[in-house]
Amino acid sequence: MNSQPLTEQQSSRKRVVIVGGGFAGLHAAKGLAHLPVEVVLVDRRNHHTFQPLLYQVALAVLSPADIAQPIRGILGGQKNLQVVMDEVVGGDLAQSIVYLKSGLSLSFDYLFIATGSTHSYFGRDDWAALAPGLKTLEDATEIRRRILLAFELAERQAIETGDHRPLNFVVVGGGPTGVELAGAISDISQYMLKQDFRHIKRDKVRIILYEGLPRLLNAYPEDLTQSAERQLKNLGVEVYTNSRVEDVKPGYLVVNKQRVDAVVMLWGAGVQASPLGKTLGLPVDNKGCVIVDEFLNPAGRKNIFVLGDLAHVEENGKRVPGVAQPAMQMGDFAARTIGDDLAGRARKKFHYFDKGDMATIGRHAAVADLKWPFHAHWSGFFAWIAWALVHVYFLIGFRNRILVLLQWAWTYFFFSRSARLITGDQNLVGWHENVEDSEKARTTAVV
Amino acid sequence: MNSQPLTEQQSSRKRVVIVGGGFAGLHAAKGLAHLPVEVVLVDRRNHHTFQPLLYQVALAVLSPADIAQPIRGILGGQKNLQVVMDEVVGGDLAQSIVYLKSGLSLSFDYLFIATGSTHSYFGRDDWAALAPGLKTLEDATEIRRRILLAFELAERQAIETGDHRPLNFVVVGGGPTGVELAGAISDISQYMLKQDFRHIKRDKVRIILYEGLPRLLNAYPEDLTQSAERQLKNLGVEVYTNSRVEDVKPGYLVVNKQRVDAVVMLWGAGVQASPLGKTLGLPVDNKGCVIVDEFLNPAGRKNIFVLGDLAHVEENGKRVPGVAQPAMQMGDFAARTIGDDLAGRARKKFHYFDKGDMATIGRHAAVADLKWPFHAHWSGFFAWIAWALVHVYFLIGFRNRILVLLQWAWTYFFFSRSARLITGDQNLVGWHENVEDSEKARTTAVV
Repeated sequence: MNSQPLTEQQSSRKRVVIVGGGFAGLHAAKGLAHLPVEVVLVDRRNHHTFQPLLYQVALAVLSPADIAQPIRGILGGQKNLQVVMDEVVGGDLAQSIVYLKSGLSLSFDYLFIATGSTHSYFGRDDWAALAPGLKTLEDATEIRRRILLAFELAERQAIETGDHRPLNFVVVGGGPTGVELAGAISDISQYMLKQDFRHIKRDKVRIILYEGLPRLLNAYPEDLTQSAERQLKNLGVEVYTNSRVEDVKPGYLVVNKQRVDAVVMLWGAGVQASPLGKTLGLPVDNKGCVIVDEFLNPAGRKNIFVLGDLAHVEENGKRVPGVAQPAMQMGDFAARTIGDDLAGRARKKFHYFDKGDMATIGRHAAVADLKWPFHAHWSGFFAWIAWALVHVYFLIGFRNRILVLLQWAWTYFFFSRSARLITGDQNLVGWHENVEDSEKARTTAVV
Repeated sequence: MNSQPLTEQQSSRKRVVIVGGGFAGLHAAKGLAHLPVEVVLVDRRNHHTFQPLLYQVALAVLSPADIAQPIRGILGGQKNLQVVMDEVVGGDLAQSIVYLKSGLSLSFDYLFIATGSTHSYFGRDDWAALAPGLKTLEDATEIRRRILLAFELAERQAIETGDHRPLNFVVVGGGPTGVELAGAISDISQYMLKQDFRHIKRDKVRIILYEGLPRLLNAYPEDLTQSAERQLKNLGVEVYTNSRVEDVKPGYLVVNKQRVDAVVMLWGAGVQASPLGKTLGLPVDNKGCVIVDEFLNPAGRKNIFVLGDLAHVEENGKRVPGVAQPAMQMGDFAARTIGDDLAGRARKKFHYFDKGDMATIGRHAAVADLKWPFHAHWSGFFAWIAWALVHVYFLIGFRNRILVLLQWAWTYFFFSRSARLITGDQNLVGWHENVEDSEKARTTAVV
């Protein structure tokens, strides 16, 4: 690793500043490893999160350390790179400078912006605390806390009184995240009810998935949507499409003008880009994604590349989706382009090589829209096997893959409970707000 | 598992209420498994924490799920037992009732109180936020956050300015926890400096251990104290005895009237019992521990047993120490005593079978005061091997021991970074309070 402070001039090497250590940022950094440039990677977190498996942390199957890795660990051996844990809060692009939250101004020759996106609450950010989304490790452990706590509270109520309030788990958004969360909640519920929570009544546990559009997995082919719905229904998940959430309150939400009680609400709808594109004055679309050309540059800015979810790039009139694969490819592409520049070669255009998409539905099923090495629509168990293989493969650099595989296998076959830890606050928002008077009155009895 | 709600009368079986799922509570619960009693275990957390390894989570060697396990997981198969996640907040012992936080009143035939102890800030509870102790998973991840964040902030400062403020880690208290923390900080510092933080200056990293008494490890034999001090010094830890902490402020503390700057302060001093003994009106000593006789009963209360750290019990004029071994033995003893009662046998006296004590010092050394199977004082590498074997052995029921062993071996040989995650707040209390004006001024420079 480079040991020069930034204040000392780095010979004549060009400096590439990468903002964001997600898939795009990491691939870009790795791609620059053997080029004669000075790389500075800035991320406000010390770790990269393998987001496709984040829902498994939320559902207490894997632990945070299984799917996250310190960025210094992943890029530790790279000699031309420095990692700075900080946040880019602004910049002056005319002068090729970005401002860091700690107060520093960092100059660059090339700027890679890969700060990603998060869910959108459609302007109702007050809903976030009631119905958390799933983007960070903290989100995942918070969702885990809420789900496990709901079971504990219902079990306690049932032990004490012989009955409990309905356990409704509501997932908003029928994209891959929502489908994966709903399926996984169903799975873990069934196992926890069998093993650990004998007093909870199965018919009082409901898992409900709402999607505003007419179908789930809108980006997938129609037949896979149908297959996903069928598989979810087999798992006992209630799926409602054309269902818009109009309000979210402690203990319930309002959907299509109807009140729906819920002990846990999760949010997987909408896309809202990192604000950095807009902050830097770059051209953005209505979600805040930066509009870039086929070289991934915003108009007129050949030294700035926008990568990953934050980039709005179209190919053959179709938007490249905001998922992991294109992010990795954009990171590789940007690094190669710097190589072209340094070698005096003409830049090439970005092309998204789409190998297809996959989403799991519980512990045994998935849908896969394969486009490489051949075209196929898979669903069910074999799609799930394919999903598992691909995801373990991409865990390269994560802990050691062997340990994660062992952990997975162990959890899969024995449904190990070790990750089911409730940490943090022991109260569940909304649990008490929605309680019948009769329940409040009960607490004078001695049992 | 029993599936009757508590409101329904349980035939004629006696009910044993166990408060606390630590070593004592778990052993008591397991000991009651084959007796014709109804057991209710109440804990405010859903998991048991293997406290002897908690410092390894604080130092980012192991992850929370490696050393904690849901109580329902550990006791899942026990048919005569129900687990209630709740907190006992009071009771009416004359009527054999305890009150739960959720509002329920729970009657008992036997009450086992095993709610443990925590560190004591000697009346200065405001110090807790500045110098956290190590009792829970949340404590451990908070300490991990602070230590890793201090390195990140210093690295950033060094990258940006060419220098950084002194990195002083201060541990207060020279008992086993303090010694283990100080040794482990030294270990991880050396590895992180080598691998990940190339800009931090080694001579600006100090690890300081303060003990108010004249020697470390006061409960151990004198020669092992000397050995521990020597081993700590080999690791670069500065040890100061007869050093009382008089004040704790953001960014520094006052020891023997001297100001000592610190970026991270950890607390391992004093003992303060759970307040439950006092709340229930039982006789307590000056630390709040319940004074019990040789049957572990408070005076005149033959149906109440106080177990583990919370019990103040003397044997041959010597206080049984508040560590894991006696807690386990007390749990076993209390369960056996119920068996004696049910069989109409006379109760036996509690006897602490002391096999000795061990404390680690970094990654390769330890001190062991063996009393079984033979008397010996060990220190150095073989003491460390003994420590590791004993602790893996007692991880029974934890996840699977094979996975933990693999994780340990992996971490030990490769010093894996996977657990080094900073989660939660990205600010470090005290970091900015103690900054030179020159540092504040620097932030206008462009680098």
